Parts: sequence; C-alpha cells; structure tokens
Amino acid sequence: MTDLAALAASFIAIPSVSGDERALADEVERLLRVAAHLEVTRVGDNVVARTVGGRARRLVVAGHLDTVPGDPGAPGVGADGVVRGLGACDMKGSLAVMVDLAVDAAPSGCEVTWVFFAREEVSRDQSGLQELAASVPELLEGDAAVVCEPTSCVVEAGCQGVVRALVTLRGERAHTARPWRGRNAVHRLAPLLTAVASYSPRHVELDGVVYTEQLQVVGVSGGVSANVVPDEATVTINHRVAPDRTIDEAVEWLLEFLGPHLEDSDACEITDAAPPASPSLAHPALARLVELSGRPPRAKLGYTDVATFAERGMPAANFGAGDPELAHHAGEQVATSELSRCRDVLSALLATPFS
Amino acid sequence: MTDLAALAASFIAIPSVSGDERALADEVERLLRVAAHLEVTRVGDNVVARTVGGRARRLVVAGHLDTVPGDPGAPGVGADGVVRGLGACDMKGSLAVMVDLAVDAAPSGCEVTWVFFAREEVSRDQSGLQELAASVPELLEGDAAVVCEPTSCVVEAGCQGVVRALVTLRGERAHTARPWRGRNAVHRLAPLLTAVASYSPRHVELDGVVYTEQLQVVGVSGGVSANVVPDEATVTINHRVAPDRTIDEAVEWLLEFLGPHLEDSDACEITDAAPPASPSLAHPALARLVELSGRPPRAKLGYTDVATFAERGMPAANFGAGDPELAHHAGEQVATSELSRCRDVLSALLATPFS
Repeated sequence: MTDLAALAASFIAIPSVSGDERALADEVERLLRVAAHLEVTRVGDNVVARTVGGRARRLVVAGHLDTVPGDPGAPGVGADGVVRGLGACDMKGSLAVMVDLAVDAAPSGCEVTWVFFAREEVSRDQSGLQELAASVPELLEGDAAVVCEPTSCVVEAGCQGVVRALVTLRGERAHTARPWRGRNAVHRLAPLLTAVASYSPRHVELDGVVYTEQLQVVGVSGGVSANVVPDEATVTINHRVAPDRTIDEAVEWLLEFLGPHLEDSDACEITDAAPPASPSLAHPALARLVELSGRPPRAKLGYTDVATFAERGMPAANFGAGDPELAHHAGEQVATSELSRCRDVLSALLATPFS
Repeated sequence: MTDLAALAASFIAIPSVSGDERALADEVERLLRVAAHLEVTRVGDNVVARTVGGRARRLVVAGHLDTVPGDPGAPGVGADGVVRGLGACDMKGSLAVMVDLAVDAAPSGCEVTWVFFAREEVSRDQSGLQELAASVPELLEGDAAVVCEPTSCVVEAGCQGVVRALVTLRGERAHTARPWRGRNAVHRLAPLLTAVASYSPRHVELDGVVYTEQLQVVGVSGGVSANVVPDEATVTINHRVAPDRTIDEAVEWLLEFLGPHLEDSDACEITDAAPPASPSLAHPALARLVELSGRPPRAKLGYTDVATFAERGMPAANFGAGDPELAHHAGEQVATSELSRCRDVLSALLATPFS
C-alpha cells in the first residue's frame, strides 16, 4: 500500500501557488501515465485521467492543484504521522489520495474521471475547471461528482453561492471647518453598516442539512484629504446564499436589503454572483458516499466547484481529507489517518455500482 | 496707482504650488528690493521686508506664496475686471496688495513687517513661517499681525484649532462563510460612525463672534480580501476646536467622545494638534481693522497662521481679498474692486498710529 503521507509531502514540496501549477501538474501527469487503465489528457496546467471500461455509470472526482500564497512552513511528515506545509490540508493530502486511487487497479463499480485542475483559489473565471469546461467539456461528463475539498472526511453537501456588491455612496466635498456646505459620504455609511452588522442569518434546511446565509462587509474605503469632507465612500459586501434561492433571487434580495440606504446618485454594482448548489443527497452515489463516510452530512457554507458541476447538471458533493478550518491558515496539516480514511471511503464508493 | 489686477495676474502667471515657490519668491524679492525704505531678507523661499523708522509700534502683515495643486484654468484679467487663475483668491490677489503697499512710501502710523512665506498649504511643520520662526525669529516680532488669507475683506477673528485622530478598530479574521469564527472590524465602525455623524456642533461666542466646532470623518479604510472578515478598520477624524479651549482640552474631549467605541486592543493616535487662536478683537490695531473694514467681524472657522502669531504672543486676525469659499476650488477668482478695497483698508490701518 502506498505511503499516502509521503506522497502528500512530495506534492507539498512542489510549490503550486495559483498560476504557478505547472511543475505539480507535470508530476501528477507523470504518475498517472504509468497506469495503463487510464486515458490521460493534459490541457494547460490541468490533467484529466479517465477509466474507459464499459460500466454504466461514471463518477467524476475533482481536486485543485493550487494553493493560496503563504508561508511554506516546515513541510514534511512528523513522527506523529501528521503531514505539514502549505497546502497540506487544502488540498494536497486529498490529491495524494486521488492519485493513489487513480493509478491503482481500475475500480469495479463505475467508470471514474479524475480531474486535477489549476487556479481554483483565485477568481472563478480563471479556474482551470472552467478552462476544461470550455475546451474539453466531454471530459467532465459524468453521473455525479465528488470535489475533494477538505471536509474532515464528512460529506459537505452542495454549496452556498456568493454575491459580492460594491456600493458607492456619494456626498459633496467641503472644507471640514464648514461641513454644512457639503455632505459627508463616509457619515452616510453609518446606517448601512449598522444594517449589515445587525443582519440576522437565514437558516435553510435541505436534505437534512442546514445552510446558514451570511452578510459581511469585506472592505470599506473613503476619504480625500485630511481637511476635506469626503464626497464618496465605498463598501464591498459579501453575501453567502443558501441553495433554496437562485443566484438571481439572492441578488434581488441584496438589492432590496440595501435599497433604503441608496439614493439616486449612489451606485450598487454586483461584482460577483456565483450560484449555490443544492445538496442532492438523494442521488444514489452521494447517498452511498454519506453512508460510507459513517458520519452525518452537513451543509457546505462556502462556495466550491460543486456548483460548477451542478451548473452542468451533475449532482455533486464535497468530500476530502483535512480540517476545513485549517485551510488558508498558517500551520496547515493533515493526519495520515485522515488520508487513509479518505482513501478507504472513496475506494469503497468506486467499488460499488450505483444506479 | 498700481494696476493691482495686472500685478495679481503676473503672480498667478508664475506657478507656485507648495514646495515650488522659488520663482515667485524671486519676483516678490525683486519688486521689494526696489523700495529704499525696506530692509529685505531672504530665507529659503521666504521673503521678509521691514520698514525701520522709529515708530513705537510694529504691525506684521503676512501672506503665503504657495497654492494648492490644481487646474491653472485660463489665468488673466477679464473685461469684467475679474482676475482668474489658480491662486487668484488664495492668495495671489492679496499678495499683490501687500507688495504694492510695501513698495509704496513708508506708512505713517507704524512700522510694518511684510512676510511672504512658502509651504502654507501643506503640513504645519513644513511651513515657511515656521522656518522663519526658527531661523530669524526677531524678524517676525511685532505688536499685532494681519494674515491676508481670503476673507472677502471682512475681519475673520482668531482661528479654530484642529485635532486629527487616527482610530484603529480591531477584530479577528475569518472566512465570510463562517463569520462567527472571527469578528468584523468594519462592522464595529457602525456605532462609531453613527456617533460622529450625530455629533451636534458646539457654538462658542467670544468677542462678539461665534465659533462653531466640528467633527468629521475624513477617511475610512478596511478590508483584507473579498472572502475574508476584516480584522482591522481605520477612520481618520478631523475635529475643529473653538478658541475657548486649549488644544490639550480638545484632545481630551475627543478621546472621551471616542472612548465608548474603543476597546483595549484598539488604537487612537493623535496625528495633528494645532491650537486655536482667540479673536483678540480688543487689541487697538485689530479693533481699528474691524472699524476700517466697515463690516461686522466674524469667527475664522478654519485654521490659519493667526495661531502661529498667537503662539508667539501676538494678537492677530485674518483679513484679505477674495471669497474664502472659492479657495481650493476650480475657477478661483478675485475682483479688482476687492483688491482695491483690501488695499484701502490696510493702507488706512498702516496710516493710523495704534497704542
């Protein structure tokens, strides 16, 4: 049996910050090409490996090659069996599981498409998965998908969408000694920030898991100079959307929420609108994944590429090794036992035919 | 009689944005050196011209050579007798009056020190007046001072001080899908901005003029990235201080005002503290200036170098040509009639002995 920890550590040792995934893609491709039962396709810094037997159903298992920028830490496998280093948790541990399962003998339950893609940690339109969808869409086809984001080997169902809005409030410049000659746009932020800070999250239960929407100001700016009443202030708002709403409904809700604070001369630009994905836990493959995980599923509160597959009509769920709370933090790590558990569950999933 | 409009236009034609006053200082020095009754001293880009007769009292008349950066407009004197261009109002019109009066025959009522200085429109510690105070303090000595900032030929008494504070509120980063793991520092701004926006100005009557204090947020910033609950937010606050308070009292008041919104991990840095100056309208020279102006005096709400003279123990007031509301705006202008009026009032002031 492969030393999953050592394989994960070897991936961590190849830096792959978003946009710089070539070396890791090369290594993954090299490992996959060894397996005769796989058809390997390289597109840019993305690698797709497919089994091509005659089984009725096909499962897509996807993971991203990139990491956020950050401190590389002291990568390696500790005496405690813990793999450390940038990307250990998000998601080079799961990449090791994927590569190991892929090069192993072909699964007996279904066909599998292994998707390794670049630039997930940046904006959606830069994602390697979108590049594949545009250039070789047939390679992404399947009956269901598993996205190996870190979930501590719990099925995290669907995903929440995200709407980002850039709100610009306007005022009129004046000297600060005579502010009544103008109108302070930053002061106008007060009721808007109060409303957002007072927002009470909406909870939505679907397929037995609970999504919790959120509304957060993620940026604020304004100011001309030290003696001038500012004539413009901007806030960037991030809204997490549960899958009982379409993204259009969520945008509409947000505009309505902000409406009382906006005047004709203000502006509200929707800068991002990524749809949520429903949990789809009734799908046989995903139901089986929940069962094999041995733990109750929960809702995915962030946005993941589960939505990309959902948009393509494929039920999908998140399942991977590593604590999601450690993602994007200094001191990323994943335990060898987690890697084994992730491998065991996915291996069992691929061994069982689903209808 | 000098064509004041043409002289003002000739000064406007020499650009003198703060830090780049050399050419205008050269020109002013050249004009002043023609007058045998003046002792002219050049220090850097500042020029001081003093009468040295034996009169008992000395009046200091001061004006800055620099302008804020800006559109030069279409400088010149219109058929309507209006002088236009960057600095027309603040304060090359008054500089023309000063130079014209200075080179005229020595005044009969008192000795006069004409001070032309650089870098008023930037920070106080860069001011040419501070440079003179440090290097040739004796040249600034006198019984009273007139600062020729634009006042529409009305005496603007004293000046308000200014306190600037940089407030930093802290929180804790988190993913926007799980904001309860952190604390949004921008959301924490809401009650602080509400308090500042709700501030009710304090009015203070001194020597028959009314000062109005102010409190304005002049800058705000915060934000890490589009998906992160921000852990820091800053606001810059500008407080205008009436002359019945010392600057220390004003700082104390501001800290007390902000106190309820600050926690131990937050910070509040006082980045500027310029003292106010009392109106001193009882001083014989300033009382006479009010009388000669023919209009009721009013309080100076902004900060001017009247405070610099007040700090040196000299009563001072603002009096100059040009609408103060036009200062620092596109389309600066000053009417020839304003220049004549300014000249007449100052000329009469200098002709009358004061006790």
